[in-house]
Amino acid sequence: MEKLISLCKRRGFIFQGSEIYGGLAGTYDYGPLGSLLKNNIKDSWLKKFVHGREDTYLLDAAILMNGKVWQATGHVDHFSDPLVECKECKHRFRADQIQDTKKCPDCNGDLGDVRQFNMMLSTKVGAVDDTASTTYLRPETAQGIFVNFKNVLDSMSPKLPFGIAQIGKAFRNEITPRDFIFRLREMEQMEIEYFVDPDRWNEEFEYWKDEMMEWMEEIGLNMKNVYPTEIGEGDRAHYSSRTIDFEFDFPFGRKELYGLAYRSDYDLSKHTSSSGQKLEYTYPEGAKIVPHVIEPSFGLDRTILAVLLSAYREDVLKDSEEVRTYLALSPAVAPVICAVSPLLKNKPELVDKAREVHGLIKKEFGRVAWDDNGNIGKRYRRQDEIGTPWCVVVDFDSLEDDTVTIRSRDTGMQERMKVDEVIRFIKDNM
Amino acid sequence: MEKLISLCKRRGFIFQGSEIYGGLAGTYDYGPLGSLLKNNIKDSWLKKFVHGREDTYLLDAAILMNGKVWQATGHVDHFSDPLVECKECKHRFRADQIQDTKKCPDCNGDLGDVRQFNMMLSTKVGAVDDTASTTYLRPETAQGIFVNFKNVLDSMSPKLPFGIAQIGKAFRNEITPRDFIFRLREMEQMEIEYFVDPDRWNEEFEYWKDEMMEWMEEIGLNMKNVYPTEIGEGDRAHYSSRTIDFEFDFPFGRKELYGLAYRSDYDLSKHTSSSGQKLEYTYPEGAKIVPHVIEPSFGLDRTILAVLLSAYREDVLKDSEEVRTYLALSPAVAPVICAVSPLLKNKPELVDKAREVHGLIKKEFGRVAWDDNGNIGKRYRRQDEIGTPWCVVVDFDSLEDDTVTIRSRDTGMQERMKVDEVIRFIKDNM
Repeated sequence: MEKLISLCKRRGFIFQGSEIYGGLAGTYDYGPLGSLLKNNIKDSWLKKFVHGREDTYLLDAAILMNGKVWQATGHVDHFSDPLVECKECKHRFRADQIQDTKKCPDCNGDLGDVRQFNMMLSTKVGAVDDTASTTYLRPETAQGIFVNFKNVLDSMSPKLPFGIAQIGKAFRNEITPRDFIFRLREMEQMEIEYFVDPDRWNEEFEYWKDEMMEWMEEIGLNMKNVYPTEIGEGDRAHYSSRTIDFEFDFPFGRKELYGLAYRSDYDLSKHTSSSGQKLEYTYPEGAKIVPHVIEPSFGLDRTILAVLLSAYREDVLKDSEEVRTYLALSPAVAPVICAVSPLLKNKPELVDKAREVHGLIKKEFGRVAWDDNGNIGKRYRRQDEIGTPWCVVVDFDSLEDDTVTIRSRDTGMQERMKVDEVIRFIKDNM
Repeated sequence: MEKLISLCKRRGFIFQGSEIYGGLAGTYDYGPLGSLLKNNIKDSWLKKFVHGREDTYLLDAAILMNGKVWQATGHVDHFSDPLVECKECKHRFRADQIQDTKKCPDCNGDLGDVRQFNMMLSTKVGAVDDTASTTYLRPETAQGIFVNFKNVLDSMSPKLPFGIAQIGKAFRNEITPRDFIFRLREMEQMEIEYFVDPDRWNEEFEYWKDEMMEWMEEIGLNMKNVYPTEIGEGDRAHYSSRTIDFEFDFPFGRKELYGLAYRSDYDLSKHTSSSGQKLEYTYPEGAKIVPHVIEPSFGLDRTILAVLLSAYREDVLKDSEEVRTYLALSPAVAPVICAVSPLLKNKPELVDKAREVHGLIKKEFGRVAWDDNGNIGKRYRRQDEIGTPWCVVVDFDSLEDDTVTIRSRDTGMQERMKVDEVIRFIKDNM
């Protein structure tokens, strides 16, 4: 974990938030390569769950919602964690995360009573400074979907079953943010609320379980570390007859990565009674129902962490004695698919030819880098560390016979091929 | 404007935020088509200003930053608008937006004194309830870039000049949010901080002015409504020797769409003195400087509004007497590039053939819809309203000779061509 955090900072993936001011606990900033990786993961999710389907609609709701939303859902009253404070050093802890709720883990002083601490971050919106204007930074993206259920019905006339999908920020005032980008105060979620006929929830649940597993594999998660775990009745939300947590073996323990929950008609019914607006679906033949909901929910930051951990490798290549570090990222999510270099940067004829090759490959794949810094060995090590699957080098032979060298990240193997075969080669190996 | 707002709601582009709870002033939610349009605009911006360049790095910084950031920049003390309150009805107004600062425009009552109202939304982060934990929802994305200047230098080793680009949410507690998605409390920005040698800021400024104009044209803004306006010395920020506002003729007046500002070394120097971290660039030959900054800044919501307004049309087609409404969106940003329909939905052989054609075109362009609702005339009107440039219809002749009809949105003209010519036709017309 320490090695990965260090690589993330050194290579421009992830930085501590507000670092030059001593940070802000529970926030991280995605650097140049991290934000490309993040965008690729989002694109892959959208491709599979929105663009690749005809029954799922995208939504992008505001982070700030009317405070009544969070009263209706029960978040104002019940979205809390148990907090204890040390009477001596005043440090605070989550009561369910410490061994002994009597003695402080930091100074061994006496701890006070456990109290419920609301995890929503509140703010006041509007120029009038009264309680009516208090609202919250959304603690989950899901409610933006439920509140827009009627708008989507009215504008898109979907047929049941259908989904509404959203990617966006959510905020939780965690008592103890920790484990790098695992437990954050500001995070990003990718969620689908899939509305179904109440009689069919069981089949749909199974279907979504498979869909989620399929996507995890696509983005390169180490599936041996993924554990779909049925949540027992006592631990499920009261309105859910079935919930699966997809747990992942992180270096700091087996923890929740994603969730799949059957939420019945709980949310739509709550919003109907609180807002007075009927949230129901009318079948083509005229019958009306409140659809039930299957919710596949993905934490984006946790996905990035699991993808990086799954990709992190150290080995010694055959032709070297040095240990190299590399990220075996799937080409689907790697920030750079291919880097193109001239063998020497001070030979204009090599640079021109390499520029031509770079242009060709970039036109096809987009995420193609130009790299002429340092010698070839250094370039390979740098591209290995950022997870670039292929490096193409243009040398003097290229000028004669229009061939280049293409090197594969995972094996270190180099092959010589015609320029116009490179694109085919990459496509075949993607 | 009323017509556009109504179309946006009816067709799933933009909904009032938290609508079923009476809304939350200054927030809007992007519906299925609006979020696709938004994503296409973001992609077009990233393509031109990040992926299409080798000197610009993407960043994705957290919305919540250490409160010291906003003290350093002066936002805590000075980011305010002049507020007046009516002594009778208690309504509040921006003093610079009303004619008479003595009498209430709503009830004609007496107004109180003008006072400065800070526009940042504040929140308290962390479990400890003291003032040290107060921070703000960022009022601009720019500072996330400046605060990460050193991280980007250290990880990416860029050569001057270079840019750092970011897309993300920003929040301003506007006294009077208004004009649909023009003046919002929660908005999205696309910003570049372009770091340059102090001697070269003038040329770089001109270069960026042209780049911005070029992009506006690419996404289909009506350039006759765009006015690059030099901001005079008295109205510029004190550290800026040149600022251009790109104004746009909105139905509610000529208003700022984008900004281009020369910010000198103001931000980096402020953060150096406040954080104690040296934010400087070292030339390859060893000299150190604090780079100067050119800032091209784009409001994403305002872009969407200007794109929609530029595209909104009403006309009467030759073969019809009815007025039709359509959005002449550029194919680069249209939520759907092409819709494919079978002439009749109850003829399996037509549906099968149309599915085949749909699959082919979708593989090429992604944003391709399947539309078999209602009769062909209704489908055309619906696709016109959402700005789909082309509609392909599969009929009985298609089964015989592998041809289809392709209809162009702007002219209503239909052409018959072979299935394998459709992709070429769309590409040529994009």
